Amino acid sequence: MTEATKKRILTGITTSGIPHLGNYVGAIRPAIQSVQNNDDDAFFFLADLHALIKCQDADAVHASTKAITATWLACGLDPERVTFYRQSDVVEIPELAWVLNCNCAKGLMNRAHAYKAQVDINTATPDTDPDFGISMGLFSYPVLMAADILMFNATHVPVGKDQIQHIEMARDIAGTFNFKYSKENPMFVLPEAMVDEDTPLLTGLDGRKMSKSYGNTIPLFGDDPQVDGEKALKKAIARIVTNSQLPEEPKNPDESTIFEIYKAFATPAELEQMRQRFATGIGWGEAKDILFDKINGEIAPFRERYNHLMANPKEMEEILQMGAEKARRESRKRMEKVRKAVGIKPLAKLKK
Amino acid sequence: MTEATKKRILTGITTSGIPHLGNYVGAIRPAIQSVQNNDDDAFFFLADLHALIKCQDADAVHASTKAITATWLACGLDPERVTFYRQSDVVEIPELAWVLNCNCAKGLMNRAHAYKAQVDINTATPDTDPDFGISMGLFSYPVLMAADILMFNATHVPVGKDQIQHIEMARDIAGTFNFKYSKENPMFVLPEAMVDEDTPLLTGLDGRKMSKSYGNTIPLFGDDPQVDGEKALKKAIARIVTNSQLPEEPKNPDESTIFEIYKAFATPAELEQMRQRFATGIGWGEAKDILFDKINGEIAPFRERYNHLMANPKEMEEILQMGAEKARRESRKRMEKVRKAVGIKPLAKLKK
Repeated sequence: MTEATKKRILTGITTSGIPHLGNYVGAIRPAIQSVQNNDDDAFFFLADLHALIKCQDADAVHASTKAITATWLACGLDPERVTFYRQSDVVEIPELAWVLNCNCAKGLMNRAHAYKAQVDINTATPDTDPDFGISMGLFSYPVLMAADILMFNATHVPVGKDQIQHIEMARDIAGTFNFKYSKENPMFVLPEAMVDEDTPLLTGLDGRKMSKSYGNTIPLFGDDPQVDGEKALKKAIARIVTNSQLPEEPKNPDESTIFEIYKAFATPAELEQMRQRFATGIGWGEAKDILFDKINGEIAPFRERYNHLMANPKEMEEILQMGAEKARRESRKRMEKVRKAVGIKPLAKLKK
Repeated sequence: MTEATKKRILTGITTSGIPHLGNYVGAIRPAIQSVQNNDDDAFFFLADLHALIKCQDADAVHASTKAITATWLACGLDPERVTFYRQSDVVEIPELAWVLNCNCAKGLMNRAHAYKAQVDINTATPDTDPDFGISMGLFSYPVLMAADILMFNATHVPVGKDQIQHIEMARDIAGTFNFKYSKENPMFVLPEAMVDEDTPLLTGLDGRKMSKSYGNTIPLFGDDPQVDGEKALKKAIARIVTNSQLPEEPKNPDESTIFEIYKAFATPAELEQMRQRFATGIGWGEAKDILFDKINGEIAPFRERYNHLMANPKEMEEILQMGAEKARRESRKRMEKVRKAVGIKPLAKLKK
């Protein structure tokens, strides 16, 4: 790719959970800011076909799709600017995944980190088949991911370090296809991984990385539509683990989870001020109040829009349909070319 | 399934070759006769997505699709009676295959005969990775085959003995899905393998089973559109291997390839007559002439229609489009139910 080519960024969000504050800081906020700060082409999609690998609770998949759509839109994703769609609405994607299966060595999948990690666990367990609990979905999802990326010839895919391998696999598969079928005029662009080293991982309630699997998350807009989101936020912050130091004692901010989380929201000046307050003694209760005000100040305007969208799913569905149309304008054309390249085409042209 | 339920037969034909006489005797003729002799629901499809696994020559895939379509129609397949379609026209099939991937243990695929046979060859070869030369297409095609079958809830799938395992896999996958997602009202019927022990495998020119890979085939309508099909048939029959017995010598029909092939076309009375001729001495040349007349008598009327169709691909494309519409009337509904079952559905119903 020449430098003159416009970047096309593609990001998938797996619909298997309700976004929490860690997702907001680690993924949603930086992605939306990045879109606002440049004029790259951007594709954001709800990866619901991927969700089926780990989440086989239909209501949970649906609830997650709804909450994630509302969250991204509420946090400022502009669906006019970005192509925002549901993966399953682009029926060409699983079809391309099959074609790519035929251009992907099984050995490539054998070497996938996520798969190998599971095999290692099984191998270490007595009387257990190395592939115990591993579905064909888990084994072959890097091919589906390649289809997600190559369908739109995305040039850059923002990923965590643990996902770099997936982009390398997509490059490998694209290269194989190009070599076999489209040497003269390559069908697929080789995508690049975009690893953002700067974005902090948010600390959870217990001081470990915030993660659903640790049960230490702070809700973004609230997990339960019946509970007021602001109250849920306040309640979660009240549960942040602190030590037993008394209010007037000087405290070490660098050992405090409150301070760690505050970092992700405060300006440098505010952070410095907080550091002073820790040094001169601040009660944990007061520190939590300041943290709450800071976070709430940033997300309260979004929360209002979130609640509105959650109560008006038609608005969201219309937006997703618009996105699907935009996406399919490309995917239909791309898939038609792919089909032709592999020998799948009508026997004759018929008048419509 | 109760016995009262109507049978639904489903047969796929991989589009990676030009039909030869062995295909006609072993698959085409019995399938078409079976459709004519009962009122089972019948689905016949051109398995072009499967063809991509072993045939990566686009022109060959296309030429095969064309020739197979013309062959089946010429041999009497009634596209009004049978749902006759191209697999790739039913875009729901690869989508269902992905959903089934998530409901299929990788271990099931590890045990597939075709895969294991290839691994055995690799393991026996020094310095060779067990998965050498194996694509994800080859590894995972039983899941695509399950999607082919389950999409239409076929009850019976005619297969060779080597394919029984694939039907068992489709049953296993269907059962897993039903258990996880549709206990009350099972989504999928468990298909049954229909193994026809009676249909003979045709003997090839050299006395071995007739097979493209042995290079011992007799063309059905001719491989080369430039060459007259009747002449090609005659020429191929002239190449049947015989021994050096002289015309007047008594011959053993049970050691003769000519007689073996004749069996697949002659009536019992004709066969008995030929047996006599062998006993009293028949020249190989004359025996070949009789064989040619017999085969040609059966297929000459089909050849005319074949040539007509090959020269008029629009007629075939229209038939395939009609078939695709019939098939998609079902596959759209089935896939909508599957999506809903797994949690993939619109956030709200929109007016069209």
